[in-house]
Amino acid sequence: MMTESSEPRWILGVDIGGTSCSVGAVPMEGGEPVALRSRPTRPERGAGAVIELLTTLVKETLSDLQDETGDGRDAVAGMGIGSPGPLDRERGIVVETPNLGWRDLPLLDLMEEATGFSATLDNDANCATFGEWWIGAGRNADTVVGLTLGTGIGGGIVLGGRIHHGVSDVAGEIGHMTVRYDGRRCKCGNRGCLEAYASGPNIAARAVEGLDGAPESVLHGRDPSEITAATVYDAILERDRYAQGVMTETARILGAGIANVLNILNPEVVVIAGGVTRAGKYLFVPLREEVSRRAFGSAVTRCEIVPARLPDTAGVVGAAGVFKLVTYGSA
Amino acid sequence: MMTESSEPRWILGVDIGGTSCSVGAVPMEGGEPVALRSRPTRPERGAGAVIELLTTLVKETLSDLQDETGDGRDAVAGMGIGSPGPLDRERGIVVETPNLGWRDLPLLDLMEEATGFSATLDNDANCATFGEWWIGAGRNADTVVGLTLGTGIGGGIVLGGRIHHGVSDVAGEIGHMTVRYDGRRCKCGNRGCLEAYASGPNIAARAVEGLDGAPESVLHGRDPSEITAATVYDAILERDRYAQGVMTETARILGAGIANVLNILNPEVVVIAGGVTRAGKYLFVPLREEVSRRAFGSAVTRCEIVPARLPDTAGVVGAAGVFKLVTYGSA
Repeated sequence: MMTESSEPRWILGVDIGGTSCSVGAVPMEGGEPVALRSRPTRPERGAGAVIELLTTLVKETLSDLQDETGDGRDAVAGMGIGSPGPLDRERGIVVETPNLGWRDLPLLDLMEEATGFSATLDNDANCATFGEWWIGAGRNADTVVGLTLGTGIGGGIVLGGRIHHGVSDVAGEIGHMTVRYDGRRCKCGNRGCLEAYASGPNIAARAVEGLDGAPESVLHGRDPSEITAATVYDAILERDRYAQGVMTETARILGAGIANVLNILNPEVVVIAGGVTRAGKYLFVPLREEVSRRAFGSAVTRCEIVPARLPDTAGVVGAAGVFKLVTYGSA
Repeated sequence: MMTESSEPRWILGVDIGGTSCSVGAVPMEGGEPVALRSRPTRPERGAGAVIELLTTLVKETLSDLQDETGDGRDAVAGMGIGSPGPLDRERGIVVETPNLGWRDLPLLDLMEEATGFSATLDNDANCATFGEWWIGAGRNADTVVGLTLGTGIGGGIVLGGRIHHGVSDVAGEIGHMTVRYDGRRCKCGNRGCLEAYASGPNIAARAVEGLDGAPESVLHGRDPSEITAATVYDAILERDRYAQGVMTETARILGAGIANVLNILNPEVVVIAGGVTRAGKYLFVPLREEVSRRAFGSAVTRCEIVPARLPDTAGVVGAAGVFKLVTYGSA
């Protein structure tokens, strides 16, 4: 099959994570990626090796795209990259990213040189939220807030079809919102951040902390070092009351933070992504209760709080969407 | 002096408050109001009496405008109204406002009929923030957040020269942000809101609560019912250590809330208005310290946290600015 492509039909989306990297070809008009390729990041090998990995993934995606659709390189408009930050978007630089060990890395230039595509760079959590706005759970909504709960808590804000970056690209750092002034110590140094309660490692740590008082729990007696957030979610789905209680508290704290987001931004949709959504109703029921308790009624009734519709591909889709937004003025 | 005014030169700004109402004529290009008139609201007389008061103030402002500038009614483009909310802006209705006792009041229609001017309606705290963005402390800034600390805490958000309203006109309710999950009870029914610590009545209440342990304070031994926020500010300026301590705690809680605003919205300017700014450095020094402790460094370095530049007229100026924005597309 051959296509005469005077108009580009695809945008490459590149999603860089601490654990794995993904590349896919996203249709110009928006849609799930085709020719999606993922591989472990292994950041300990250094930035150069990761750039090489990404370049390989791009080549493989292009090859698969050719096989699957007949479209070649000339059918690709360019490449959107999502990376952990903080970033200097204007200069295309990753200022610092603890998970990857990068400092002042000129990622945009390196990727443009390595692949020959023109590219854009944005924060990974912004990209994930933008992907959900473009074709996912926040489709067509005017104000969308996204939260990704993993090793940390990332956040993004999409207003009127654009990412709100703020004056120095920090906007959307919802995970470091104080909800308990004198609360748990966060790895950022602060106290009482959402992340100090609701990131994966903190959910696991809180579960371990209370175990002495929960001899009936399936988690009791296990080696604490083996208890991860995933172990807690498994226990919840096995109807372990103790694990469910840990999730209820997590949901309430998260609910207080999301209520703050409702009172400040009054969004149409809040999208929650990450492993924690496996807890299903044990997360969403107490979370929505707490939001209703703490946010203005007319903000609550107009806001959907929902799990991600693109749990695995929002980053790739959104990175491509950002390229389209920056290059063509809208996605 | 006579002016041939084919182009309107003024917009009336109407600021409705629980204590007093003000009307002034704001230059089309932005500027301090002329022919400013203020009078006590006395809401207990009912909505009709307040509408009558506003109509009288409008007439007086028009008369003063004529005297001061020679410009008549035909030089006035229209009228912007700022009112406590919540509002239904689209329908021009005040849905409910406890301080004034209004419910489902069609304020926009009533004011248009009474005065003959076309009008716009927005929330009072939004108007105050918009006024500071237009010609005050947030001039030309891309992202401005305003906080007005009075009987309650009002907030507004201006992004790219427009007020962010959210999906149901609730956005900007920063006063009801939870910063202490299990903290003080707020009059909204929630716990740990900023307002539960930093509104005028709560500053006074917190000062009274700790007085037994502060025999050295000038406030000690006073009739608690006579201690208001203003009494506390007076004591601070008289170098009363106890009152200064109350302000330090207020500033820290407020700082945690403003740090949340920095992490979420990454504004260029945060404008603080209201009597509390009388505490000067006793407010702003610990407040900025707390913000630095809790917000991302690159958000802190790029954000000015400053007192209002239009403490008495931001509401009138901003209401007029909103009329211009709605009518002409930008202010």
